[in-house]
Amino acid sequence: MNYQSINFSEKLNKFSDLWQPRVIAEMNDYQFKLVKIKGEFVWHEHDDTDEVFIVLEGEMEIEFRDGSVEMKAGEMFVIPKKVEHKPVAEDECKILLVEPRGVVNTGDSGGELTAENDVWI
Amino acid sequence: MNYQSINFSEKLNKFSDLWQPRVIAEMNDYQFKLVKIKGEFVWHEHDDTDEVFIVLEGEMEIEFRDGSVEMKAGEMFVIPKKVEHKPVAEDECKILLVEPRGVVNTGDSGGELTAENDVWI
Repeated sequence: MNYQSINFSEKLNKFSDLWQPRVIAEMNDYQFKLVKIKGEFVWHEHDDTDEVFIVLEGEMEIEFRDGSVEMKAGEMFVIPKKVEHKPVAEDECKILLVEPRGVVNTGDSGGELTAENDVWI
Repeated sequence: MNYQSINFSEKLNKFSDLWQPRVIAEMNDYQFKLVKIKGEFVWHEHDDTDEVFIVLEGEMEIEFRDGSVEMKAGEMFVIPKKVEHKPVAEDECKILLVEPRGVVNTGDSGGELTAENDVWI
């Protein structure tokens, strides 16, 4: 039997909306999610979990209250739990997120950018 | 303060040995590990956890007792717990693994390809 790998580009071609994470895989109780971002997100934090950003295409920045990290394709960063952060991208940037099942994109902040959770593609 | 992202290419340039995973990040109790592979690994399984392979450069195949999956750069696959598998790469292939802290590369099988665990780079 030929099993099928998960191809990031193929999955990314299936949606175009921004700030709407799509689940592509689960490992134990963690999910791998693709998301396209452009502009500024809301300040938020996740009280119960770290969160991983892996940049697949483009460039982005994550702002913290005491600084920031710049990221480009081929780079990752771990945002510790309880740390306020705000993702920002001047041009569209494509990201792979890794975090436990159930994490909401806007964390504790809510608001209009809050995406439906657990949407698979 | 400028925080530093984790650059996969920079980290990969710091070692050349095969089948020896290097930890580059932790998220909660999970680790992200880089590994270079070439040739055939041993058949093994992980009884307690799924395991994620993300191919960064090159091509590889994971053999299962009932089939296989072919993977190239920009693709991932989740190996379910308790499923016997054998990674194979004709030419050198560079991979990002995601799995819980403490997982041994040869799983239940042991043998001479068993790498020292929790080696950071």
